[in-house]
Amino acid sequence: MKLHILGCYAATPRTLTNPTSQVLEIGNHMFLIDCGEGTQVQLRKLKIKFSRINHIFISHLHGDHFFGLPGLISTFRLLGRDKELHIYGPKGTKEAITLLLKLGDSWTNYPLVFHELTSKDPQLVFEDDKVKVETIPLQHRIYTNGFLFKEKVGERKLNIDAVAEYKIDKCYFRNIKRGKDITLEDGRVISNKVLTFDPPKPKSYAYCSDTGYFPDIIGQIQKVDTLYHESTFLESEAHLANKTKHATAKEAATIAQKAEVGTLILGHYSTRYKSIALFKEEASEIFPKVELADDGKVFEL
Amino acid sequence: MKLHILGCYAATPRTLTNPTSQVLEIGNHMFLIDCGEGTQVQLRKLKIKFSRINHIFISHLHGDHFFGLPGLISTFRLLGRDKELHIYGPKGTKEAITLLLKLGDSWTNYPLVFHELTSKDPQLVFEDDKVKVETIPLQHRIYTNGFLFKEKVGERKLNIDAVAEYKIDKCYFRNIKRGKDITLEDGRVISNKVLTFDPPKPKSYAYCSDTGYFPDIIGQIQKVDTLYHESTFLESEAHLANKTKHATAKEAATIAQKAEVGTLILGHYSTRYKSIALFKEEASEIFPKVELADDGKVFEL
Repeated sequence: MKLHILGCYAATPRTLTNPTSQVLEIGNHMFLIDCGEGTQVQLRKLKIKFSRINHIFISHLHGDHFFGLPGLISTFRLLGRDKELHIYGPKGTKEAITLLLKLGDSWTNYPLVFHELTSKDPQLVFEDDKVKVETIPLQHRIYTNGFLFKEKVGERKLNIDAVAEYKIDKCYFRNIKRGKDITLEDGRVISNKVLTFDPPKPKSYAYCSDTGYFPDIIGQIQKVDTLYHESTFLESEAHLANKTKHATAKEAATIAQKAEVGTLILGHYSTRYKSIALFKEEASEIFPKVELADDGKVFEL
Repeated sequence: MKLHILGCYAATPRTLTNPTSQVLEIGNHMFLIDCGEGTQVQLRKLKIKFSRINHIFISHLHGDHFFGLPGLISTFRLLGRDKELHIYGPKGTKEAITLLLKLGDSWTNYPLVFHELTSKDPQLVFEDDKVKVETIPLQHRIYTNGFLFKEKVGERKLNIDAVAEYKIDKCYFRNIKRGKDITLEDGRVISNKVLTFDPPKPKSYAYCSDTGYFPDIIGQIQKVDTLYHESTFLESEAHLANKTKHATAKEAATIAQKAEVGTLILGHYSTRYKSIALFKEEASEIFPKVELADDGKVFEL
């Protein structure tokens, strides 16, 4: 699993900072999460192939998470896309995009599939044989979801030495990897545990932005490997965080600690601060494993 | 008069090229013309103060001329703007912007005044004591207007030596500058021509993008000082220009020649070409005074 940060600053695009967007590489997918203005340029800078993006998850309809989407959809058309594009976002996403395409008489040549979200409870929005994605309802000024990406448990790994020792034919390997025991010709039953190793532990990633301090999410994100949690402010501006329904670095760290996550990645920094190192400093007092998102940074999760 | 090119490339924003947007400095105004994605970042790069922009002219509702507008409007709000912002654009501009603001529950704190355009004839859209702006209906795939910016004739310039010679009191200067003759105490009438020089010739700028080859505009833009005319293609791709209702460099130059303009500025280049110098080469065969727009370039007109 790999996380590409295209942009992780709050509010408005600037010369050197970009609004929120990231790409999560997981189980052959390149999931685009949020799409602030300039996302398509960031995709080019980070050399991410547009054709690999088939699913876009939009947390909420504030411009800094969403205003890059109409342009990206138009660019897909100009690049000759014909594959379906799935967009998961709040109710209203479809109306906005279709109005803009209609006004420009620029309908896509490829199918645009909208999955509009309205539920205030977690909801499974995507599933295939390798990955599940569910919403994480957040607490912001408007209807907002984070997203929880979970790898599924893979097949068990074959113990080559063990299958050789029992002279087991290849035609049984598929069943063995799926966890079946094997009965030999002499009647002996060989337990699957002898023939296989545990599959790699499936990984999970929780994206939580934008949100105020919202402990309701702790149950759902319990023990995720990586939590991206917004920290627009430091505690010195807690009054602003409270007013605008954003979180401080300390609050993000408190969520991470209570949810016992593996690593906390901070982002969505207000540009009022001289250095983002301050966010890590503040969060590290509460939770040990803190990383700082930054535009262009890639995390191997 | 000064023209700042924020972006002048066709279709999609790229790492090093921006979609259409420009700022015309004229008579104390900073008129923003078109607003492709990334315009607000280009404004920052070119150090143009956001607070000086009060009028935005949108030619048409294709994304590469328009998708930067919602973000710019939002940024104005975040910057605490309270002055009116006037937006001149095709019918639909208001619906699109208000829907996006509504979905984000991000109404502006400042008045947003929409001047929606539907006429297929030239129309006066702005006028004050120094400047007039009228639409130039163009021929594109959707309803599109260029814009013609004209300085008004200013006051006549006082001939300091002449007013001294006739010992004319300062209190008459205002009337003299406005063209009045003066009667001296001895009854002699001094013609205004003796007391003043002609005012500087008012300048004009015509912005024509996007459009196919459309000679109908020639009458309206006759003898403008500067014409910005799109040239998405070279003649070698005339079939594409024709199909997509864009112009070639040769066609832009033909319009410039027939309209007897002062200078032709080319722009809206397709990124398929290795060098924009090719556009100047082609246009210069028809019309002598050709300049190439490029992102970040500033023209003193």
